[in-house]
Amino acid sequence: MRGRLTFWFEFASTYSYLSVMRIGALAAARSVAVTWRPFLLGPVFAAQGWDTSPFNIYPAKGRYMWRDMERICTARGLPFRRPDPFPQNGLKAARLALAAAETVRIEAFTKAVFQAQFGDGADISSDAALQGCLRRAGLDEALMQRAQAPAVKSALRAQTEDAIAAGIFGAPSFISGPELFWGDDRLEQALAHAAGREI
Amino acid sequence: MRGRLTFWFEFASTYSYLSVMRIGALAAARSVAVTWRPFLLGPVFAAQGWDTSPFNIYPAKGRYMWRDMERICTARGLPFRRPDPFPQNGLKAARLALAAAETVRIEAFTKAVFQAQFGDGADISSDAALQGCLRRAGLDEALMQRAQAPAVKSALRAQTEDAIAAGIFGAPSFISGPELFWGDDRLEQALAHAAGREI
Repeated sequence: MRGRLTFWFEFASTYSYLSVMRIGALAAARSVAVTWRPFLLGPVFAAQGWDTSPFNIYPAKGRYMWRDMERICTARGLPFRRPDPFPQNGLKAARLALAAAETVRIEAFTKAVFQAQFGDGADISSDAALQGCLRRAGLDEALMQRAQAPAVKSALRAQTEDAIAAGIFGAPSFISGPELFWGDDRLEQALAHAAGREI
Repeated sequence: MRGRLTFWFEFASTYSYLSVMRIGALAAARSVAVTWRPFLLGPVFAAQGWDTSPFNIYPAKGRYMWRDMERICTARGLPFRRPDPFPQNGLKAARLALAAAETVRIEAFTKAVFQAQFGDGADISSDAALQGCLRRAGLDEALMQRAQAPAVKSALRAQTEDAIAAGIFGAPSFISGPELFWGDDRLEQALAHAAGREI
């Protein structure tokens, strides 16, 4: 491994979908180890006085985001459906990802959840959808119970506080050493930094 | 010319600087004609309830933007100084660009203003700085007077209303046919669309 990148994402975030589906392969090609860190945008947005996604608060920005996502997903051969409602509630999925503990399983589970949400139009707050994602990731469905443990809940709160303390204000975000990179558009730059090659 | 791209920018916008300095060469390489359209972000932001740049309203986003600009300018070999105050007042510069009328001069003048602002740390609301930019663009300094004409003032207001009507919510933005692209990160995609090559 040439370096390490911390990948901060929120399960309901459209642009996180883009990075979730490609960061594994891109990082492997650069021998960069990725630490997957789910967090919640809700508290981040609440601190800015917002009670929903800025894409809902600012309609022109929201209309643009949906079209931008359509174009990028088409170019990358990714299925894309607009979740309804948006944003979905990613709380259970985030707790499950934290409870999964093993990185290789977190990645598989996370990809399954994003595919279910943006590819199949599933409601990712539903237990049935999440159980399907656990199965696809080779994870034990008993995790549904373990993810409700107080230790998991407080770990997710702490992780979200860590994100805010690190200067994160949106998702996806990437941290390499002292550098913060925001948005799927910065993934290549973040990986290059992590690989020790400043671009 | 293979296509046409409308380039919407605001003179005080940091990310507009990135596109202003490279759109000419990139568009020429693709035989795309560029229409330069300055507009004012002030009314766009006011419609969203903001009285200054969102980079000032949301400190974490602002801190990130300055570092992001530094990194990108370093990578591109562009000088970068943080304007003080930020944002600057780009009203006179926008009126001058509209009064210049000829595209080739608008581009030269606009690049001179952005270089003065972000390269040299000049105050682009000062007549002296703007006169220097007119000279560097081969434009008549008498334009300083003509830019105050009611027709120019109303043309800039109309252009800003056109931007909002086109769904623009930030700068830089690019329009190719029915497609809106936002941000310097989308310049290549916008040019490819304008050149008739959907990517």
